[in-house]
Amino acid sequence: MRKDGEEFIVTPWEVKGKVNYERLVKEFGLTPLNEELYKRLTKLAGDTHKLLRRGIFFAHRDLDWILDMYEKGEKFYLYTGRGPSGHTHLGHMIPWFLTKWLQDRFDAKLYFQMTDDEKFLFKPELTLEKTRKYALDNALDVIALGFSHEKTRIFLDTDYIGVLYKIALGCAKKITFSTVRSVFGLTESSNIGQIFFTCIQAAPAFIESFIRRENVPCLIPLAVDQDPHFRVARDVAPKLGFYKPAIFHSKFLPSLSGAGKMSSSEAMSAIFTIDPPDAVRRKIWNAFTGGRATIAEQKEKGGNPEICPVFYYYAFIFEEDDKFLEERRLRCLSGDLLCGECKEELIGRVIEFLEEHQHKRERARDLLDKFLLKDGQTF
Amino acid sequence: MRKDGEEFIVTPWEVKGKVNYERLVKEFGLTPLNEELYKRLTKLAGDTHKLLRRGIFFAHRDLDWILDMYEKGEKFYLYTGRGPSGHTHLGHMIPWFLTKWLQDRFDAKLYFQMTDDEKFLFKPELTLEKTRKYALDNALDVIALGFSHEKTRIFLDTDYIGVLYKIALGCAKKITFSTVRSVFGLTESSNIGQIFFTCIQAAPAFIESFIRRENVPCLIPLAVDQDPHFRVARDVAPKLGFYKPAIFHSKFLPSLSGAGKMSSSEAMSAIFTIDPPDAVRRKIWNAFTGGRATIAEQKEKGGNPEICPVFYYYAFIFEEDDKFLEERRLRCLSGDLLCGECKEELIGRVIEFLEEHQHKRERARDLLDKFLLKDGQTF
Repeated sequence: MRKDGEEFIVTPWEVKGKVNYERLVKEFGLTPLNEELYKRLTKLAGDTHKLLRRGIFFAHRDLDWILDMYEKGEKFYLYTGRGPSGHTHLGHMIPWFLTKWLQDRFDAKLYFQMTDDEKFLFKPELTLEKTRKYALDNALDVIALGFSHEKTRIFLDTDYIGVLYKIALGCAKKITFSTVRSVFGLTESSNIGQIFFTCIQAAPAFIESFIRRENVPCLIPLAVDQDPHFRVARDVAPKLGFYKPAIFHSKFLPSLSGAGKMSSSEAMSAIFTIDPPDAVRRKIWNAFTGGRATIAEQKEKGGNPEICPVFYYYAFIFEEDDKFLEERRLRCLSGDLLCGECKEELIGRVIEFLEEHQHKRERARDLLDKFLLKDGQTF
Repeated sequence: MRKDGEEFIVTPWEVKGKVNYERLVKEFGLTPLNEELYKRLTKLAGDTHKLLRRGIFFAHRDLDWILDMYEKGEKFYLYTGRGPSGHTHLGHMIPWFLTKWLQDRFDAKLYFQMTDDEKFLFKPELTLEKTRKYALDNALDVIALGFSHEKTRIFLDTDYIGVLYKIALGCAKKITFSTVRSVFGLTESSNIGQIFFTCIQAAPAFIESFIRRENVPCLIPLAVDQDPHFRVARDVAPKLGFYKPAIFHSKFLPSLSGAGKMSSSEAMSAIFTIDPPDAVRRKIWNAFTGGRATIAEQKEKGGNPEICPVFYYYAFIFEEDDKFLEERRLRCLSGDLLCGECKEELIGRVIEFLEEHQHKRERARDLLDKFLLKDGQTF
């Protein structure tokens, strides 16, 4: 939802300013992930995940219902995706990390949607050839994360429209222009593809039910900016006789520049999965931190990890151990840990991670065809 | 275009009242088919057609350009279609008759679109299963008219969306809600599928150019109510680097009830291709005519063929010979030909036509698969 006149904006196509997640919960009408549900989820999963422990997946819709169904023997499938408007950066992968964990722990099928049509419609400069190229490139990052081929399929909307279109038509018939205007802030000058698009994004939330001709619960892990699509999809679901999809919302990996979420459009603010070590080094060295103006001042007053993207990089991805993370936080607060040391260590971890990821990414090229879902195929 | 406060309405989804074709030409911005172009067309074709001679195909956009291109050796392809919301009636077939003639005379490929998606989106009561059923049923009528299999392909939008979608997206990116509101009278309460639909109808106008990756002229014979879609498509074409499609507009076969065009929604006003002889007899006997209140009065003052659907049935379909048609007109005007005789003769011709058509229709079932274009196939 666009928050006019306020200090932040969160829509599926724009995230700006410092996001106030508490307010987002209220304004989007989300349910915070409470201690009880966290415990239930991790108990059923058999273990936990840092993105859960640290409140990075912070809100949901009907996650409790998904677990009810799971306990009754009705297994859910997972659906997430990517808008392929450029190369993948680390921020894009946050929901994918948890999706992988959910797939492994709950033995869940995953539909991974590449919205090449969306990015073509919303970005004046992009052609369908370009969004296809990015989609196939981004798919390598998905595969590199180790998703099971048996349980995972990736599709480009323009490749899989033969299946998606009928489901999308059903949704479209129940959604008016008034709705997409108020939910997405679309206007009379929006193109008719943009207006139609939300039902293409809704379709995979119903695809298993549509194909199997019986209702199958669907859980969608996503970054919270994508929630509006599924608010609409959830409104439509009962009118079509489908279950409402459950949603699990993550926060955004902050921008290295310290303002808002990491963004593909500012190359220096984000680390891309294809970045070479020297780019990683340069970007992290140039990153905004919660540090003080001088070393002397920092040693005296301590830093502020709450506003520090470098700290969040550790918290979101690069520090598995909660104890070490807390130690880092306290050392920063006390002035014992200086930004230079903290950045240098992060640089090492990111370079190591990307080296391995880039290696897996290259191997993923040979697997790509096995993961891609084309028209006429079901999964 | 909806003509508010006026006595007739012509939009792709509604035709009401007595259509004033002269005014339609002005308001839609069409070019009347003049004597010179008529002569040029029939000279190139090698013969003529009653729908041309009698002014039933009465207007066009760029038909002269299509002939220029043809003379330069750039052959055009044909595109027409049907919204499968019910069984085919004789009025639906008027553009198909001329399309067949154009295909034969100009050796032109034909793409025949069944807009099963459109009818689903615009008719609350229709499911996609029903519009598919009607589409496959209507296709039998198309095939029964004798279209060459080598040069003709029929597709349902939901079957062929894999090819159509990319073209439609290109169009959609150039069409705003404001445009579809002003051209089609869509509103904020319109569903987002209706808003998107015009680019699906536009797509086949560019399909040969899209597939061959070089511009191919396209001629679209249609009933004039469908013109608004192609006004939009023609605006978009140069922005996508395509030729503007040329359009050839027919009048509507009048309703047997005497008011407006023949309509599927009033069964008694239209003769369906599957009607048995007794239904034909009953419908024509009950038809409105240009006759007088009594036989005596008619013998004295004569009838009025100008307002008589029975006369138009002869003119549009059931009288090949201009001389006989003129004779019939004069005998009606003079009071020599009474409605009973005129109707009885028409009943005989319609029954004979339908008997043969229904026979061909049954044989068409075996050919259907050869004509249908599915995703992944090109033609």
